[in-house]
Amino acid sequence: MKKKVVLAFSGGLDTSYCVKYLKEEKGLEVHSVLVNTGGFSEEELQQTEQRAYDLGVAQHTNLDETEYYYQSCIKYLIFGNVLKNNTYPLSVSAERVTQAMAIARHAKALGADYVAHGSTGAGNDQVRFDMIFHVMIPEIGILTPIRDMKLSREEEIEYLKKHGVEYDFVKAQYSINKGIWGTSVGGKETLTSHLPLPETAYPTQLTKEQPERVTLHFEKGELTGINGTTYNSPVQAIQALQSIAAPFAIGRDIHVGDTIIGIKGRVGFEAAAPMVIIKAHHTLEKHVLTKWQLYWKDQLATWYGNWLHEGQFIDPTMRNIESFLQETQENVTGKVHVLLAPYRFQVEGIESEHDLMSSKFGSYGEMNNAWSGEDVKGFSKIFGNQAMMYHKINNTTL
Amino acid sequence: MKKKVVLAFSGGLDTSYCVKYLKEEKGLEVHSVLVNTGGFSEEELQQTEQRAYDLGVAQHTNLDETEYYYQSCIKYLIFGNVLKNNTYPLSVSAERVTQAMAIARHAKALGADYVAHGSTGAGNDQVRFDMIFHVMIPEIGILTPIRDMKLSREEEIEYLKKHGVEYDFVKAQYSINKGIWGTSVGGKETLTSHLPLPETAYPTQLTKEQPERVTLHFEKGELTGINGTTYNSPVQAIQALQSIAAPFAIGRDIHVGDTIIGIKGRVGFEAAAPMVIIKAHHTLEKHVLTKWQLYWKDQLATWYGNWLHEGQFIDPTMRNIESFLQETQENVTGKVHVLLAPYRFQVEGIESEHDLMSSKFGSYGEMNNAWSGEDVKGFSKIFGNQAMMYHKINNTTL
Amino acid sequence: MKKKVVLAFSGGLDTSYCVKYLKEEKGLEVHSVLVNTGGFSEEELQQTEQRAYDLGVAQHTNLDETEYYYQSCIKYLIFGNVLKNNTYPLSVSAERVTQAMAIARHAKALGADYVAHGSTGAGNDQVRFDMIFHVMIPEIGILTPIRDMKLSREEEIEYLKKHGVEYDFVKAQYSINKGIWGTSVGGKETLTSHLPLPETAYPTQLTKEQPERVTLHFEKGELTGINGTTYNSPVQAIQALQSIAAPFAIGRDIHVGDTIIGIKGRVGFEAAAPMVIIKAHHTLEKHVLTKWQLYWKDQLATWYGNWLHEGQFIDPTMRNIESFLQETQENVTGKVHVLLAPYRFQVEGIESEHDLMSSKFGSYGEMNNAWSGEDVKGFSKIFGNQAMMYHKINNTTL
Amino acid sequence: MKKKVVLAFSGGLDTSYCVKYLKEEKGLEVHSVLVNTGGFSEEELQQTEQRAYDLGVAQHTNLDETEYYYQSCIKYLIFGNVLKNNTYPLSVSAERVTQAMAIARHAKALGADYVAHGSTGAGNDQVRFDMIFHVMIPEIGILTPIRDMKLSREEEIEYLKKHGVEYDFVKAQYSINKGIWGTSVGGKETLTSHLPLPETAYPTQLTKEQPERVTLHFEKGELTGINGTTYNSPVQAIQALQSIAAPFAIGRDIHVGDTIIGIKGRVGFEAAAPMVIIKAHHTLEKHVLTKWQLYWKDQLATWYGNWLHEGQFIDPTMRNIESFLQETQENVTGKVHVLLAPYRFQVEGIESEHDLMSSKFGSYGEMNNAWSGEDVKGFSKIFGNQAMMYHKINNTTL
Repeated sequence: MKKKVVLAFSGGLDTSYCVKYLKEEKGLEVHSVLVNTGGFSEEELQQTEQRAYDLGVAQHTNLDETEYYYQSCIKYLIFGNVLKNNTYPLSVSAERVTQAMAIARHAKALGADYVAHGSTGAGNDQVRFDMIFHVMIPEIGILTPIRDMKLSREEEIEYLKKHGVEYDFVKAQYSINKGIWGTSVGGKETLTSHLPLPETAYPTQLTKEQPERVTLHFEKGELTGINGTTYNSPVQAIQALQSIAAPFAIGRDIHVGDTIIGIKGRVGFEAAAPMVIIKAHHTLEKHVLTKWQLYWKDQLATWYGNWLHEGQFIDPTMRNIESFLQETQENVTGKVHVLLAPYRFQVEGIESEHDLMSSKFGSYGEMNNAWSGEDVKGFSKIFGNQAMMYHKINNTTL
Repeated sequence: MKKKVVLAFSGGLDTSYCVKYLKEEKGLEVHSVLVNTGGFSEEELQQTEQRAYDLGVAQHTNLDETEYYYQSCIKYLIFGNVLKNNTYPLSVSAERVTQAMAIARHAKALGADYVAHGSTGAGNDQVRFDMIFHVMIPEIGILTPIRDMKLSREEEIEYLKKHGVEYDFVKAQYSINKGIWGTSVGGKETLTSHLPLPETAYPTQLTKEQPERVTLHFEKGELTGINGTTYNSPVQAIQALQSIAAPFAIGRDIHVGDTIIGIKGRVGFEAAAPMVIIKAHHTLEKHVLTKWQLYWKDQLATWYGNWLHEGQFIDPTMRNIESFLQETQENVTGKVHVLLAPYRFQVEGIESEHDLMSSKFGSYGEMNNAWSGEDVKGFSKIFGNQAMMYHKINNTTL
Repeated sequence: MKKKVVLAFSGGLDTSYCVKYLKEEKGLEVHSVLVNTGGFSEEELQQTEQRAYDLGVAQHTNLDETEYYYQSCIKYLIFGNVLKNNTYPLSVSAERVTQAMAIARHAKALGADYVAHGSTGAGNDQVRFDMIFHVMIPEIGILTPIRDMKLSREEEIEYLKKHGVEYDFVKAQYSINKGIWGTSVGGKETLTSHLPLPETAYPTQLTKEQPERVTLHFEKGELTGINGTTYNSPVQAIQALQSIAAPFAIGRDIHVGDTIIGIKGRVGFEAAAPMVIIKAHHTLEKHVLTKWQLYWKDQLATWYGNWLHEGQFIDPTMRNIESFLQETQENVTGKVHVLLAPYRFQVEGIESEHDLMSSKFGSYGEMNNAWSGEDVKGFSKIFGNQAMMYHKINNTTL
Repeated sequence: MKKKVVLAFSGGLDTSYCVKYLKEEKGLEVHSVLVNTGGFSEEELQQTEQRAYDLGVAQHTNLDETEYYYQSCIKYLIFGNVLKNNTYPLSVSAERVTQAMAIARHAKALGADYVAHGSTGAGNDQVRFDMIFHVMIPEIGILTPIRDMKLSREEEIEYLKKHGVEYDFVKAQYSINKGIWGTSVGGKETLTSHLPLPETAYPTQLTKEQPERVTLHFEKGELTGINGTTYNSPVQAIQALQSIAAPFAIGRDIHVGDTIIGIKGRVGFEAAAPMVIIKAHHTLEKHVLTKWQLYWKDQLATWYGNWLHEGQFIDPTMRNIESFLQETQENVTGKVHVLLAPYRFQVEGIESEHDLMSSKFGSYGEMNNAWSGEDVKGFSKIFGNQAMMYHKINNTTL
């Protein structure tokens, strides 16, 4: 009986090569899996399944992990307003771990002998896949043909041709990865440090010119509605916002970051809904959370994002930080008004019954009655006490 | 002989009131001081001086602290990419302390009996002024007529009229504060949580429609040139960039923050050059600094910005953090290319001989020769070792 | 009808003065309250109550808040291994807030017109009391006779004598404050920077000479048993340990810290059970938590302790951190063996089924089979990749 | 001509085996190096050199790196009061990197073809050596016979015997590593989680019974003198203190920590001088630094210690943190009085002209004149303002 391998399959050149290679050269029964994290349409899923069978897999499975992905991960990225290096919503980093976990469970359920992924040897994904597999399915061997053989694109195409596969593998100029939390765009210019991506490189083009206002509804930190419509799941609300905001070509940027293996990587992305949601959510928080809640959320979420990026989602520290973040969202409920315009958006204001900028307690820069000038004078004196003593005792010149 | 008071004077209603009040009601010899931190033109300085004398000051002094302000403070805000709550470049927070320190030195040199400021009782500035004065000139009394008497605008105008002063104190709809690190805009909508500022509220209007590319030159973290022109001082480079970028109406936003006295405050701002510089500088850093340098810069700079905002510039901790930040800038040298467009800008890329994204060591996502697939396999195993043991020993279900 | 004042009463000179002063000079009906946080015996409680009535209070109430204090505060100090500046278990800082909150609730329930405390103007307690009262009972006036009148000890005694009170107020050389989480000792030497407290200053003297072993049982981070005996509440377990450990005169030290008002304060303390529990708990954690759990617990708990010390227990950030800490304790279950000896103790080892130092996965420094030398070689190469590139690209000399 | 290998040589079984193995089996010219970081006497150095030649090395070199080790590393561990997990002064972690760097320079100077170390596959040292070698001498191959062949102690002894080497390699019960910053003790009990090391396992035994007072002199954070004697280098001061303090058998403990490779490791240590110096230095700092200097030193130093432990000394982030730490030491000058007693010590007090606990500004808990009760009342009100608003607006029950 043939041994079974579960292959993370996307339908692209690398994983197509893997199917043939694992079947023909290694004599394995190939079970391909595509894990959808919100980036595939029904049509795309069917096409990919068809291609898998055409290539000769014994079985293909599409797993929809979008809801799980949101509940276990995206939710906390929103709570933490996570933007890696203040730029990137971690679109790919986050979903890769979810995908690896789903594949591991699948391989275990199938009783697979091997699990395979098509990562190269110079990216983050190889580490994310390897680590999750080592932890969750240590008894199952890991196969990585592309990484091991350091094949060039041309060699892969040649090999496939020889085995009768002649899809249109003309080198797409950019490699695209799409999920609910954003789309990454890599290739050509992103391999340099100085060139921006051209307008045409982005999958979503500008199709709305007229600015538009949108209202986001948050309940305990989660996006539950848009413009007065409430959704069954935040996943739907995110997708609804995406369809409104994406045509403005907003949420684009280039991220330069540290890969897990130490080299720097540069990648373009478009993430209309994620960028709008994070900035809207953060603005609401500035109104309803205290100074130190904001400070500590920021410190913890920065680290959380970095550690997630490095594939360490299963470190229990992550669960501890999620508890912290969850607890901070108690009052993060209200509406946020956002203006969408071509290539940009602006958070215009918020409404919340938890708003600490309540006029009941005096307005910034205006008069107030809750405390007196004397109170502030006393405060200033005491608040500056230690600095005063420090400079006196050390005779510093200011 | 009359006792002397040194008054922080801006030429606005509040401080005009203070001149008259301190002179007439308190019988003091008023020495007005305007501390320029890069926001005043020569003409504005002369007008303010004239107004001071018209109001009856014994002496008016314009102090130019722009260079000192840059060297002691702005420089570190750039090194730290400081944006309060990821939004606000601390335009006013930073300059107020510099101004207070200059006034304290001036009052000491003059042998003043009192020092006065026109702050109200519900903002940050009162604390910043009070604290610096307590520390630097504890022997000199502090007078704060506006805060103490809780006067309304109308009462102030009435009083000035009675004393023959009839400037056009028609309530400006917005209170504007301008310095080299940005202009703040407060009033009307910023007193609510939900309304944005109208286009007309911003002092600088959109006058350039055609996108434009600009190259920023950094030397050890400091902006030294623009488009190939080198400046004598970063102050001049900042001003040059401002004149190029401001007509695009970029760098605008609304900040909601925690005041030192605990209430929330909301303020609009426009800061074209500061926002472009910070994002450009940060991008350059992402290329030349290591992962943990970026991490710790971020953690420290966030706190540095907050503490500066709270008027605690003279805490020696700030000097310690500045040493850290300075040391990180050793290799932050290179060019950054930025695209300016109406209401938005984009950092397009960088060039630096310290760029860690060197192709010498393999490119992100491509093949490489400096390490093998086996190396990464080993890395992944060891890197995930502790998580693996944790889940094994505790029998968790993943 | 007389107005009512609720007075925080300890039975000492200052608060005895307050009773008489508030009754005689202010004409108020005095309701004294003693809040027990585990430091008073039944006998002491009765004596204090008697003294209150002798001094003329209308009503005295003893409130036992020990269990609440543990559940709302001490528990988290243990979870966080909180030692301020790596020294002080926050004995007084923590209990003062609990006491202030109990008094505020009591005053509200009684419909008091005033609330009074006997703090001086140079310590932390005044701020802790003031702040809690401002927040919880802003409608009730705060009276602080000792602080306002800056009375000397002699003046207070003189006044009391004049009103027929002649307790033995011979100045105790040291001011002692006792609660379940430790006893503080202040006075004489602690007012200098260079002198230690003499042996006699400590309330508990060395009475056990023979070293003794004790085993602490932790369940999810809480001390539930001692030497095989399980207690109904961790409060009882702490007290049981205290009775075993205190006779060894352990857990003594002098803490030098920053007061809320900016001056430095020095205080001696003895806290046998708290010090043993914290070190034992921490050691258990080192065995069962991951590296980054330990790191983040430390960072957060340090700040938590500081903020609690500053009386900011009611900041919601504290609740968020408590959620984090609680979540980390899931596996902190096991036994810890401690050796007690005169003036010192040592944690000897732990036993836990969650121990990550399981021999299943290879022992430190010994051979192992879970990974190969090649794996580690690969790990080292990748782990040092960025440093390698940094030094190559920048041509540094190492 | 034979190829050259530089071998890190300690004279123990593992590295003795390596000499023979590299010479006989690999046909290499062996150049052994011992890097002294303050743990070897002149006599021990000579014995080790002799043994090297007896085993057949072509050349043996003793490198004294003690002063460099202090200047580049220990100094900052003192500035940062670094105790890993609040316990361990990083005795071995720190010196191993210094040793690896010295060996790398030596190998380069000799034009060696290989560099070898005797680490096993389950500890930290292998990673520290590998990483430094990869970065500093990537062109030189790394040999690790013990790790690669997973030899048992018995096999090594057998092999040596066969080659005529019959030193007394009776298994020492404990493996000892000695340097200026402490001595580690591993073996037997440390391989369990629950057993303490017996008294006899510690190299230094208790030989002083009578308590003794010692005064440490610090200049800008560095130990420059003991009991009135000034030393040419802090290295000498540390050694002088060590000779005074070690006979009290103080500074012993067991550390449980996370190895770089993810497993937990347990190790005993004795470090009399380091533990006394760190606690004395920290106490002095509590008197002369401000609250936030102490806070940030602590946060940064914790991470610094961890990263050093993981062999990442050459990450430039470390240099940045050192700048921070250096800058904080400006006023850390003064005397610290310490009581030494059998198995324990106590910091009794400090004297410094930078002491912020100056009586000039009012004493903790006593009366003062620099501010009034009203000032503190105002402070408390403003300091608690945000918490007050939070609870009012959200109607929480306290």
